[in-house]
Amino acid sequence: MSNFNSLAVSELEALQTELKEKYEEYKSQNLNLDMSRGKPCTEQLDLSLEMLDTVTSNSNLKTADGVDTRNYGGLEGIPEAKEFFASILEVNPKNVIIGGNSSLTMMHDTVSRAMFHGVYGSEVPWIKFPTVKFLCPSPGYDRHFAICELFNIEMIVIDMLEDGPDMDQVEKLVGEDETIKGMWCVPKYSNPDGITYSNEVVERLANMKTKARDFRLFWDNAYAIHHLTDTPDELKNIFTACEEAGNPDRVIIFSSTSKVTFPGSGVAMMAASENNLDFFRTQMFVQTIGPDKINQLRHVKFFKNTDNLKAHMEKHASIIKPKFDRVLQLLSEELGDKGIASWKKPNGGYFISLNTLEGCAKKTVQLAGEAGVKLTGAGATYPYGKDPKDRNIRLAPTFPSLEELSKAIEIFCLCVQIVSVEKLLAEK
Amino acid sequence: MSNFNSLAVSELEALQTELKEKYEEYKSQNLNLDMSRGKPCTEQLDLSLEMLDTVTSNSNLKTADGVDTRNYGGLEGIPEAKEFFASILEVNPKNVIIGGNSSLTMMHDTVSRAMFHGVYGSEVPWIKFPTVKFLCPSPGYDRHFAICELFNIEMIVIDMLEDGPDMDQVEKLVGEDETIKGMWCVPKYSNPDGITYSNEVVERLANMKTKARDFRLFWDNAYAIHHLTDTPDELKNIFTACEEAGNPDRVIIFSSTSKVTFPGSGVAMMAASENNLDFFRTQMFVQTIGPDKINQLRHVKFFKNTDNLKAHMEKHASIIKPKFDRVLQLLSEELGDKGIASWKKPNGGYFISLNTLEGCAKKTVQLAGEAGVKLTGAGATYPYGKDPKDRNIRLAPTFPSLEELSKAIEIFCLCVQIVSVEKLLAEK
Repeated sequence: MSNFNSLAVSELEALQTELKEKYEEYKSQNLNLDMSRGKPCTEQLDLSLEMLDTVTSNSNLKTADGVDTRNYGGLEGIPEAKEFFASILEVNPKNVIIGGNSSLTMMHDTVSRAMFHGVYGSEVPWIKFPTVKFLCPSPGYDRHFAICELFNIEMIVIDMLEDGPDMDQVEKLVGEDETIKGMWCVPKYSNPDGITYSNEVVERLANMKTKARDFRLFWDNAYAIHHLTDTPDELKNIFTACEEAGNPDRVIIFSSTSKVTFPGSGVAMMAASENNLDFFRTQMFVQTIGPDKINQLRHVKFFKNTDNLKAHMEKHASIIKPKFDRVLQLLSEELGDKGIASWKKPNGGYFISLNTLEGCAKKTVQLAGEAGVKLTGAGATYPYGKDPKDRNIRLAPTFPSLEELSKAIEIFCLCVQIVSVEKLLAEK
Repeated sequence: MSNFNSLAVSELEALQTELKEKYEEYKSQNLNLDMSRGKPCTEQLDLSLEMLDTVTSNSNLKTADGVDTRNYGGLEGIPEAKEFFASILEVNPKNVIIGGNSSLTMMHDTVSRAMFHGVYGSEVPWIKFPTVKFLCPSPGYDRHFAICELFNIEMIVIDMLEDGPDMDQVEKLVGEDETIKGMWCVPKYSNPDGITYSNEVVERLANMKTKARDFRLFWDNAYAIHHLTDTPDELKNIFTACEEAGNPDRVIIFSSTSKVTFPGSGVAMMAASENNLDFFRTQMFVQTIGPDKINQLRHVKFFKNTDNLKAHMEKHASIIKPKFDRVLQLLSEELGDKGIASWKKPNGGYFISLNTLEGCAKKTVQLAGEAGVKLTGAGATYPYGKDPKDRNIRLAPTFPSLEELSKAIEIFCLCVQIVSVEKLLAEK
C-alpha cells in the first residue's frame, strides 16, 4: 500500500470502507486487551520469586554494622544496600539514601519539602514565590506532571529532540527566570521516547547558568539498567558532571527496583550531594521511623553482586525484547510506508512512543478503546494532559502476552489508519 | 528513709555525701545502658520471626480479589488486610486505607496535605492562615510535636488529667479560635502517661463545638492492643461517637503493627469517613505507586485471625510485663516514700511517666547520662522540648534486659535523689 497522503478521494473512500469492515469484525470479538501501563508481566515477576526466600526466620537479620533490621533505626537505609545501589547510581555510598518502596514517593516528597522549606541554598521556601515553574521535556512521564499539578507548579513544555531535551530552549529559560526551580529528566531510555541524553546534553545541563540559585534537576533514572540490547546506551554521569561544573548541588538522582524485582515491593533510592542530603535529612526524619530494612536486606541477599544483577536484567530483556520486536514489526508492516505515523526503536526502557498525524491521537485511542484495546490516554505524555499537536501515543508492550499484544497492535494500527483517512478526507 | 522534704539541712547534707559516693561507684563502672526509646526487645521481635516464612516463592501471591501482590495496583491496601485491620480499628473496611511501614509517615503526610490543600470541608488550605494551631495534650509524643514544628504549626499545651486531656481547656480553645485546626491524641495507654481516655472525654471530643469547621482529631491509636494486664483498659469508639455526634468527618485514626510485628517492616493504617478518604485519595495517589502489598499479605497470612493476634499480643505482654513490674518495684523501693517523685502504673503501652520535683528533670537526665544511663531527653514530652515545670521524665523499659534495666533504674533513682537533695538544700 502506498503513502496515504498521495491517494485520491475515491481511493481513500474505498480504503475507509475496507478498514471499517475490519474494525467492526474486531469489535464484535469483545476483546479486552490492556497495554496502557508499563507493568512487568508475570514471567518477569517470576524472575525475582526466590528473593522471597532469601530472608526467612533462620536468616541472620543483622546488617554489616550490627543493626537488627527487625527493629527501629537505620533511617537512611542499611549500609549494604547503600553500597550495592551506589554502584548502580554511579555515586559514592555516602551520597545515597535508600528509602521505601517507591521512587515516585521520594520525588513527590522532595518537591513537597522544597515547597515548604526550599532546598539547600534556597533563600526562601519555593512556596513564597507567586509562581514556581518546572521545565518538562515532553513527551514525558505523566506522574511527574501530576506532582507539579498537585503543588500548583507551572509546567513549561520543552521539546524532546533525538538526543534529549532541546537545550537551547532550556538554557534560555533557566537563564532568565528565577522562578524556574526544577526540571524533570528521565535521562535514559526516556518515558515514553526511549531516548538517552547525549553527553553534550548532560554537560550542558550540568554547566548552564540558572537565574535561580536553588534550581534542581530531578533526575529520574528509572531505566538505568533496563536494556533491550547487548550494546546498551551509555549515559554520562550527571553527578560528576555537576561536580566538575562547580554545581555539585544541582542534581537529585532517583531510581528504584520496581521494574527489577517487584513493583510495590521494591526498594527506592535517591542520590545527591552531602549538602543536599543533610538538608533533606532534617526534614525527612520527621516524616518516618525509617524504611523497611528487612526488604532492603532481602534485595541485597538476592543479588549479592552486580554481576548477578546484570544477569537478572538480561533475563528481563529476554522476556520483553520479543514483545518490543513484535510491536515494531507490526508497526512497520501496517504503518511503515503510509506516511501517517512515526516512531522510534528504543534500546531500553518500557515504552514505544508513536506520533500520528496531527490531531489524530485522541481519536485513535478512543477508537481502539471501543474495540477493547486499552491504551495510555492520549495527551497523558504532556503537562496538563494536553498534547499541543494531539499526536503522541505511548505503547506499553511488556504486560500482555505476545498473542494478546499482536492482536492489540493490529487493532491499534487499524485505528491509526481509520482516523488518518478520516483526517485526510476532511482536508480534501 | 523518711520524706526528704522534712529533713534538716544536716541530714540532707549527710544524705548527699552518701548518695554521691554511690553515684561515683556506678560511674566508675563505665556502663552503657539505653532506655531512651520505646523499642521492642529481641525476644519480642522473635515472636514474629515466622512471619518471614509465610510468603515464599511457593506461596499464592494473589489477593482475595485476584490482584497479583507482586505488581503495580491496589493503591490503598489489599482487601484482606483492610478487613483484618478494620476489626482492630473498630471500623468498616471501607473506612480503612492500609499504607506503608510507618503510621508516623501517614500522620506527617496528612498534616502536609492539609497545609497545602486543607481537608474535606476546608474553605482554604491551612497554609493560607497566618498561624495554624494544634492542641497538644502534654506530656505527649515528641514525634507528633516535631511534625507541628516542621510545618510551623503553633502548639498549645493541654494538661493531661487522670482520664485524658483537660476537656474544659480543650472545649474553650476550639470553641473560640478558628485557627486551631487539629489536636494530637494518643487515646489509649498514652505516650508517656499510659492514660486511656475516659468515655466522657471521648464523648466530649466528638461533640464539642469547634470554631474551625475543618478541625481534625489526629487519633494515634498506637497502643490499641498493647495491654499489660488481663483486664485491659477499654476505649470508647471515637469513630462511631463522632458519627453519632453529627461530626463524622472530625476524626482520623492511625495505627500500625510496628510494635506488633517489626518496627520498620510493619504495616501502617489509617481510618476515616468516606468523605475524608475520598479527599485524601486524590492527593495521596499522586505520591505513591501503592504500598508494599506483599508485606501486607505476609501479615495477614501470619495472623490469620484476631484470636491469633490476641494470643500474639499476650506473648508480648508476658515478655515486657516483668520489666514494667521491675521498674515499678524499684521506683517504689527507692523513691516511694520520699516525696520527690510521682508516677503512674500503666495498664498497657510502652512507657512509665515519672514526675520529679519541679526543675529537676533536666539535671536528673544529665546526671544519669554521665553515669552511662541514656534516658529520653527531659522536655521531649512537651511541645518545643520545653517542659514548663521541668519535671517529666519518660522511662522506656521494654528494650533492655531485666538485669540491665534494674541497674539503669537503680542509677536513675540515685540521680533523682541527688538532684532533689540539691534542690531542697538550695531552698533552705
